Amino acid sequence: MKAEIITIGDELLIGQTVNTNAAWMGAELSRIGFNITRTTTIPDKREDILRLLTDVTGKVEVVLITGGLGPTSDDITKQTLCEFFETTLITNQEVLGMIELMVQRRNQHLNENNRRQADVPASCRVLYNATGTAPGMWFEKEGTIFISMPGVPLEMKYIMTEHVLPELKKRFSSNIIIHKNLMTYGTFEAKLAEMLTGFEAQLPSHIKLAYLPSLGVIKLRLTGTGRNRAQLSRDMENQVRKLYKEIPQYIYGEDEVSIEEAVGRLLRDRGLKVCTAESCTGGRISQMITSVPGSSAYYRGSVIAYDNSIKVKLLGVKESTLIANGAVSRETAEEMASGALKLFGCDFAVAVTGIAGPDGGSSGKPVGTVWISVASADKITSENHQFINDRNTNIRRFAIAALNMLRLRIPGQ
Amino acid sequence: MKAEIITIGDELLIGQTVNTNAAWMGAELSRIGFNITRTTTIPDKREDILRLLTDVTGKVEVVLITGGLGPTSDDITKQTLCEFFETTLITNQEVLGMIELMVQRRNQHLNENNRRQADVPASCRVLYNATGTAPGMWFEKEGTIFISMPGVPLEMKYIMTEHVLPELKKRFSSNIIIHKNLMTYGTFEAKLAEMLTGFEAQLPSHIKLAYLPSLGVIKLRLTGTGRNRAQLSRDMENQVRKLYKEIPQYIYGEDEVSIEEAVGRLLRDRGLKVCTAESCTGGRISQMITSVPGSSAYYRGSVIAYDNSIKVKLLGVKESTLIANGAVSRETAEEMASGALKLFGCDFAVAVTGIAGPDGGSSGKPVGTVWISVASADKITSENHQFINDRNTNIRRFAIAALNMLRLRIPGQ
Repeated sequence: MKAEIITIGDELLIGQTVNTNAAWMGAELSRIGFNITRTTTIPDKREDILRLLTDVTGKVEVVLITGGLGPTSDDITKQTLCEFFETTLITNQEVLGMIELMVQRRNQHLNENNRRQADVPASCRVLYNATGTAPGMWFEKEGTIFISMPGVPLEMKYIMTEHVLPELKKRFSSNIIIHKNLMTYGTFEAKLAEMLTGFEAQLPSHIKLAYLPSLGVIKLRLTGTGRNRAQLSRDMENQVRKLYKEIPQYIYGEDEVSIEEAVGRLLRDRGLKVCTAESCTGGRISQMITSVPGSSAYYRGSVIAYDNSIKVKLLGVKESTLIANGAVSRETAEEMASGALKLFGCDFAVAVTGIAGPDGGSSGKPVGTVWISVASADKITSENHQFINDRNTNIRRFAIAALNMLRLRIPGQ
Repeated sequence: MKAEIITIGDELLIGQTVNTNAAWMGAELSRIGFNITRTTTIPDKREDILRLLTDVTGKVEVVLITGGLGPTSDDITKQTLCEFFETTLITNQEVLGMIELMVQRRNQHLNENNRRQADVPASCRVLYNATGTAPGMWFEKEGTIFISMPGVPLEMKYIMTEHVLPELKKRFSSNIIIHKNLMTYGTFEAKLAEMLTGFEAQLPSHIKLAYLPSLGVIKLRLTGTGRNRAQLSRDMENQVRKLYKEIPQYIYGEDEVSIEEAVGRLLRDRGLKVCTAESCTGGRISQMITSVPGSSAYYRGSVIAYDNSIKVKLLGVKESTLIANGAVSRETAEEMASGALKLFGCDFAVAVTGIAGPDGGSSGKPVGTVWISVASADKITSENHQFINDRNTNIRRFAIAALNMLRLRIPGQ
């Protein structure tokens, strides 16, 4: 089962946009058992598009195409697809209706450019797009399926998730592949691999383990392949159980769960409330917590005390503490956490103060230094970490470390 | 002057690694006047590599190749290059010396894998690599230059910067390409295209305009091609000036500047301070503002009043306002902004309250509804927007809209 990916657009060729679409589509196709044989990026040029479409026809089962579907004159994919599939553009009334609705909601009038988005090749199956005005298109020719989608990542992902992946799964389902992820935090990849040497050695040949690290979170992905779904599920469950036994202290969740989702579930299930007091993370922790739907059930709010005077005024940090220990210190972090706990009236308060960089470091407290405190009515705990990344990566690592510290403080796990 | 990019590696095809190398090389080649005609990613497979090399020979001036040069058995690029250029591997003593030095520095012993890295095709020019053990290789065949480099971004960039780009600049200095981006916010692509119909019609044939939309921000990219740099620069400046005249209200910056950077520059230059009061955006605005290095010069902090009681307690929103108008209303947004302005003692306060979804909408206030207020000592302004995206996209769009509203309020632009 082979697939190719074609991404169209000068912005990709000249490197103004990094091709994250190709990576995302490659990962998704590979997950459902496709072998990605090639990814090609070409400009919005009729001859290049035609040449490549001709080249892939009959050679692979599926070709995913993104880009070149905008309403402007530099977007020529749709016309070129018509030429290749020997068909013409017709107005699709359903798409037109959806576009009219979208334009109305934005309090705009339908113009010629909007209207053109509803023109689709007569021979294609239209893949409706609830996230934008350009629909996806499904064609078939000489045993190859061609799917054309807009290049806006959000819209491509919508069409893939809603239409393309379910349909491909239905059509191509001989070999069964089961993935299971365990999410870990708190150690390094090399260390984890060392701890799991014995586990890896006993894995049966049809189950593989992969380490996928990102910002301190390491996703352990087990991939099982087989022909009998029930048997394969049992084998996988068996290995997952073993993995839990090997490294219980590092596993915080399964599948694609993020630390903020894992924390959110624990808080919600126990009816606990949390607040934050952020300095160097500048709202990142709050933003992560509230990115989870339903977070209002357990999150009350935050004081972003970016300026030291705000730490004093709103959180009750003592001037003398700041003078004696500096803003980046255990003492300041603990006073921020206690202050937030009182101010918001929560079960837990998380406070973070550190140096994200690029400036502001010193030899004693280099860029990447952070103090994190978690306060509850009866206890306050603090941790000091040292990261060595750029500003925005440091901020994200501080925030993840803080959320993990909160997670470990939640009782009854 | 045409160039192609070939990246080799399964990790790229299955999306475990995003292809940032292709973007970086595309940007660098384009900067020195090359037209990137295609980027292709293929697996570490002899036949695929040979087929593609044959396909590009004689068609473009330069082919950059990365990946497949590691010491392990799945890396077969070097052997395949030997086959394609009809040559054999010989040990390069200088490379071997450099590898020995590198291995010594790491307190390791030279092993067979290290030693093999010093074997290079006899017919290539070796491009020394001070950042790793695999050297780059330069070949020429039928008018096409082929450059093979390791896939590790740091090593590829070193070889490109030290050897490849200076040499290419020397050899090909005829065609010049200049890109210029204007960043816009506040309207839709289709609408913008309509406003710019006249502008597009008058563009000379050597200057092209492209629309690159993302979350409400539309980047307008002008690309000019020519042989005389000074003349082309003047032509481009002339068109940029015209574009400013056509849509002054929508342009917020040039090149790759984000809205938070543009706002930050304006605030810093004028010595103004800002704070925020966020509800549904949950810290996203604060996080965006503080993602910019040096933001502490103009940003004091925020109250994230996720819970309504916090709006009352910390921001001084009246209970009666919440009861009469609801939390998502002009009145609540304005009281949040006024409250934050007083609390933080800033020149501007930005407040946002809305419904990000997926739940919490009603027929009068559907998901995607937001009220934004910007307060200063003498004036408070408010806007209502309606978006139609998923939770986290809505949050980002609310935040961008709020930052743009703040931008338009900053005096003396």
